[in-house]
Amino acid sequence: MDEPRKPVVSIVMGSDSDLPKLEGCIKTLKEFGVELEARVISAHRSPDLAHEFASTAEQRGVGVIIAAAGGAAHLAGVIASLTTLPVIGVPISSSAMQGVDALLSTVMMPPGVPVAAVGIDASVNAAVLAVQILARSDANLRSALKAYKTKLAAGVQQKSRKIQKRLES
Amino acid sequence: MDEPRKPVVSIVMGSDSDLPKLEGCIKTLKEFGVELEARVISAHRSPDLAHEFASTAEQRGVGVIIAAAGGAAHLAGVIASLTTLPVIGVPISSSAMQGVDALLSTVMMPPGVPVAAVGIDASVNAAVLAVQILARSDANLRSALKAYKTKLAAGVQQKSRKIQKRLES
Amino acid sequence: MDEPRKPVVSIVMGSDSDLPKLEGCIKTLKEFGVELEARVISAHRSPDLAHEFASTAEQRGVGVIIAAAGGAAHLAGVIASLTTLPVIGVPISSSAMQGVDALLSTVMMPPGVPVAAVGIDASVNAAVLAVQILARSDANLRSALKAYKTKLAAGVQQKSRKIQKRLES
Amino acid sequence: MDEPRKPVVSIVMGSDSDLPKLEGCIKTLKEFGVELEARVISAHRSPDLAHEFASTAEQRGVGVIIAAAGGAAHLAGVIASLTTLPVIGVPISSSAMQGVDALLSTVMMPPGVPVAAVGIDASVNAAVLAVQILARSDANLRSALKAYKTKLAAGVQQKSRKIQKRLES
Amino acid sequence: MDEPRKPVVSIVMGSDSDLPKLEGCIKTLKEFGVELEARVISAHRSPDLAHEFASTAEQRGVGVIIAAAGGAAHLAGVIASLTTLPVIGVPISSSAMQGVDALLSTVMMPPGVPVAAVGIDASVNAAVLAVQILARSDANLRSALKAYKTKLAAGVQQKSRKIQKRLES
Amino acid sequence: MDEPRKPVVSIVMGSDSDLPKLEGCIKTLKEFGVELEARVISAHRSPDLAHEFASTAEQRGVGVIIAAAGGAAHLAGVIASLTTLPVIGVPISSSAMQGVDALLSTVMMPPGVPVAAVGIDASVNAAVLAVQILARSDANLRSALKAYKTKLAAGVQQKSRKIQKRLES
Amino acid sequence: MDEPRKPVVSIVMGSDSDLPKLEGCIKTLKEFGVELEARVISAHRSPDLAHEFASTAEQRGVGVIIAAAGGAAHLAGVIASLTTLPVIGVPISSSAMQGVDALLSTVMMPPGVPVAAVGIDASVNAAVLAVQILARSDANLRSALKAYKTKLAAGVQQKSRKIQKRLES
Amino acid sequence: MDEPRKPVVSIVMGSDSDLPKLEGCIKTLKEFGVELEARVISAHRSPDLAHEFASTAEQRGVGVIIAAAGGAAHLAGVIASLTTLPVIGVPISSSAMQGVDALLSTVMMPPGVPVAAVGIDASVNAAVLAVQILARSDANLRSALKAYKTKLAAGVQQKSRKIQKRLES
Repeated sequence: MDEPRKPVVSIVMGSDSDLPKLEGCIKTLKEFGVELEARVISAHRSPDLAHEFASTAEQRGVGVIIAAAGGAAHLAGVIASLTTLPVIGVPISSSAMQGVDALLSTVMMPPGVPVAAVGIDASVNAAVLAVQILARSDANLRSALKAYKTKLAAGVQQKSRKIQKRLES
Repeated sequence: MDEPRKPVVSIVMGSDSDLPKLEGCIKTLKEFGVELEARVISAHRSPDLAHEFASTAEQRGVGVIIAAAGGAAHLAGVIASLTTLPVIGVPISSSAMQGVDALLSTVMMPPGVPVAAVGIDASVNAAVLAVQILARSDANLRSALKAYKTKLAAGVQQKSRKIQKRLES
Repeated sequence: MDEPRKPVVSIVMGSDSDLPKLEGCIKTLKEFGVELEARVISAHRSPDLAHEFASTAEQRGVGVIIAAAGGAAHLAGVIASLTTLPVIGVPISSSAMQGVDALLSTVMMPPGVPVAAVGIDASVNAAVLAVQILARSDANLRSALKAYKTKLAAGVQQKSRKIQKRLES
Repeated sequence: MDEPRKPVVSIVMGSDSDLPKLEGCIKTLKEFGVELEARVISAHRSPDLAHEFASTAEQRGVGVIIAAAGGAAHLAGVIASLTTLPVIGVPISSSAMQGVDALLSTVMMPPGVPVAAVGIDASVNAAVLAVQILARSDANLRSALKAYKTKLAAGVQQKSRKIQKRLES
Repeated sequence: MDEPRKPVVSIVMGSDSDLPKLEGCIKTLKEFGVELEARVISAHRSPDLAHEFASTAEQRGVGVIIAAAGGAAHLAGVIASLTTLPVIGVPISSSAMQGVDALLSTVMMPPGVPVAAVGIDASVNAAVLAVQILARSDANLRSALKAYKTKLAAGVQQKSRKIQKRLES
Repeated sequence: MDEPRKPVVSIVMGSDSDLPKLEGCIKTLKEFGVELEARVISAHRSPDLAHEFASTAEQRGVGVIIAAAGGAAHLAGVIASLTTLPVIGVPISSSAMQGVDALLSTVMMPPGVPVAAVGIDASVNAAVLAVQILARSDANLRSALKAYKTKLAAGVQQKSRKIQKRLES
Repeated sequence: MDEPRKPVVSIVMGSDSDLPKLEGCIKTLKEFGVELEARVISAHRSPDLAHEFASTAEQRGVGVIIAAAGGAAHLAGVIASLTTLPVIGVPISSSAMQGVDALLSTVMMPPGVPVAAVGIDASVNAAVLAVQILARSDANLRSALKAYKTKLAAGVQQKSRKIQKRLES
Repeated sequence: MDEPRKPVVSIVMGSDSDLPKLEGCIKTLKEFGVELEARVISAHRSPDLAHEFASTAEQRGVGVIIAAAGGAAHLAGVIASLTTLPVIGVPISSSAMQGVDALLSTVMMPPGVPVAAVGIDASVNAAVLAVQILARSDANLRSALKAYKTKLAAGVQQKSRKIQKRLES
């Protein structure tokens, strides 16, 4: 990328140790050709950063925010409280509780301030959901999503044939 | 409404007994002036209906689907498997398990087929999330969301003053 | 097997990564001499495949379907919605939640569309249950099941004697 | 019924207080015209009764056993240990734990001795599953199951129309 | 109270519907003669209010903050991120999940930003803990706590005698 | 009882509000003719009372202690730490968590200091277990236990006949 | 042991794979000089063995039964249904559910048929509890238990001193 | 440290095997320059030690107690029952239940006897909370806490820049 383009999806994570679980998200967004940025922002350890990020994301041109955090995962909720952009929450299984704490902290939001939760560690789905949201006003993404779905089904059929062959042999 | 307009948000519920839990969703969407429809579709009892609904929603002009179900809540997932529209899942607390089964059945989707889960019975949040998604290409909805957020905060402050007064007296 | 015979039990799994957990199922069915097939079908990534499979299984002569899946395990439920054959669901412990999500997604079906759930990863039991169902109209299988039960008990007694000896020495 | 016919499905419950939760099961089996019997047998309080019942059910002509129990629900498992008939387990939500204890006690059986678990309190599904098993060798039941499925779907559509009308008015 | 004194303990609740569960807290603090204030502040619906409250509490003379919230209970955590005062979190059982979500959202904080969690709905304990913290620099409160403990024990003994008498009669 | 005899079973409860859940325990012990006492002792609110009770129970002639408590139910554990008498723990479902907290707090004891846990609110079973322990050195209790078991089975059969009749009519 | 003595404690396990988790139990009982036996008995795979074992244990001179099992752990309950001896249940963490299923299957017994549950995998505590029960009619065991308790406390103090030294250095 | 100073924070752990999980706590307190001691005290295996420790801590000059334990974690509660000092409880994930048992046993205390619970294994937060409590009467600690918070935020920003660079390259 010789000159930076404005990110349309902003990925924030509560800790840099969450990055490996977000690689699938980043890779998927890039495959769809969506401009993205990725940052570490802790709702608890860097609250002012979180506040500034959430308050200014929309005017920076961001369309969808993906927030990943573990434990008492407040990151998605804190951001959702300060923006009207759709916020996708990815609960991370970083604690002894294997992500159940993060899932509940992410999804059980009070009326008026939604977070769109995906499954525990399900960062690829966060990316696909972001693309689905952006696709509403982008015909290219709509086509790309349809191709993606076709490829998913084809992948399943290919694996099925392999197993069927193996059993017959 | 003298002549029907095309629904932009489609609300589907697994059972008509879920309707009371969706009143908040319907009311919120109407307050934002979003055209909506509501249907009963069971992933398990009426699978062909679900298939037909999901396969044709986009061409009917629907932009966002809200799917509410309890128990082994497959409705949102089944629809998500057949459309590239964003699907918001509302887990309903209809079983002995108080909605935990519905939450997990809704949110733990495999890579490639996301459902945007909101909290158990959190149908108002499903509506607000739908509006946030639609607002990306609708400046009026963006303004309305900002006003909504301001009203939420004002409501909190008003209630706070009441309690403070009560304690002082 | 020089010429293919029609499968009586059809094993479907949501992902080829589930195959190792199904080896016990396949081995057990073969020991009972039951004709089987095994396929990968994802309720979410290949919904049309799932639809076609479930709608045609009975006319292909399949008598029992075993469906294994993890996470928001909809596979058994989706198939059960489209066939009147008995569907046995095997929840797979593939996610951070160790199969609890899969168990609930498999077993908490709405009235009218049952799935016969076995334990988490309990694919041998899925096989034995399938044989028990087939045995109703097959005297050979009935005898084989009785021999199997006797062998189970004998195995326990043999292990008991080993431990008793070890303690005495 | 002027003269008693031999029961094909035997329903056993751990306590007579479970009977109200089994009314749906009894009613559904009767609608399918399946001969049934219902008994109270406690795995813990009447173990000899359980032993005798399970050991003799097959020779009495019973084809499928439905066992319903709450708490540490051993009834289905104890019966399954003594018969090769398919045993359907219905976890009952009778304890402070709302049936989670009964579900786990019913479904997590060791290899070789399956119980076909349905959802918590899901006694209608136990009946339908029993009919699906019997239908393998009974063309009338196969037709009846197809009609039942059609009726389920029709019921959903009827309710959907009601809700759609209500919203439009 | 003819003229207002500066509150030493500040009670904040996420919703005015939590007030009944905080009456025990307020009553207990008053019995210890601790100056208090009570406000409604929602981490999600009034984030700026939360920010301002937390940033200025220490300079207003507040010594301990008690924060009560249900669901994805972020209130205590959000406040703890913005102050170095001890923050006591009271998880409220307001959702379908009976407070488990609130407990985990309150207690599983990341390293460096603690919340002192008490039990679900345990607002009396939040008050006593606040007094214990204040007592470190207040000999009167130390004496009052010792008297309180003596009274607790006496209350138990009195109830014990009643039950013993009842059994003997 | 004209003159008091020394209690052989001592029932302690963490709060007098637990008494209704212990009525079955008291009634069952009386039916077996076992001398008993019942007290309120809180591990947390009256620790010295708990200490004194546990340290002196054996020399007072007590043979078995039944300790019932809810929430973070430490009562049985605290007593077990101070006596070598068998301590039976009854987890009480008094909190928002329905007794799961009490069950885990009662049963998960460290090596060397066992508590014999019975089910949530299962105070009748605590009584029967106490009788079983006492019966080792009391032939009368052994006979009484056998009669009790016979009565349990007879009760089940009687209820079974009632239901069978009702279904036939 | 040149000539066999009659076992006073009988240890039964559902599978020989549970043996490693019972070594602590066996070692502890031997340290107390209690005669023991150990057997593999599966409630589900060898029900007749279980029935015979439980029905004859008392007349063989067994005083306490320790039953260890994982998953839908019915072993302790099945034995308790057929004997009036005290039965101690050890839930084993052998399944994907880490022993929670075994704990609930062991402890949530119906009124009249208690199992004395110890913690998950807590086989040492099962041994100590058995000794406590036997000690009621055995003064030597009573003394041994008191010595054991003193040794537990001394062990703690010794470890404390080590850590204190390490911190000071 | 050439001459011992009186500890202001006392760390007690239920077992020396918990020490590795408390290293972060010890290191953090030392960084704040807080005098500390660390001991092994088991509520269950050394109850008299626990009693003596808790009864004398205040007069020894201890200001805050941190108690860490796993399983049925009674240590914090037992100490809290015997002192009016603030007691911080650290649930340790030492059992098969991954700390959920310890969390509930620590936090669900009865009214009047609070424990300030931090997250599972969250010993750094126990240290920071202790410092926050001590800081009320210590201006140096107040400054140190503010610096600590600034450092936390700076650490997050530094990590964010690293990730942003990595993505751009």
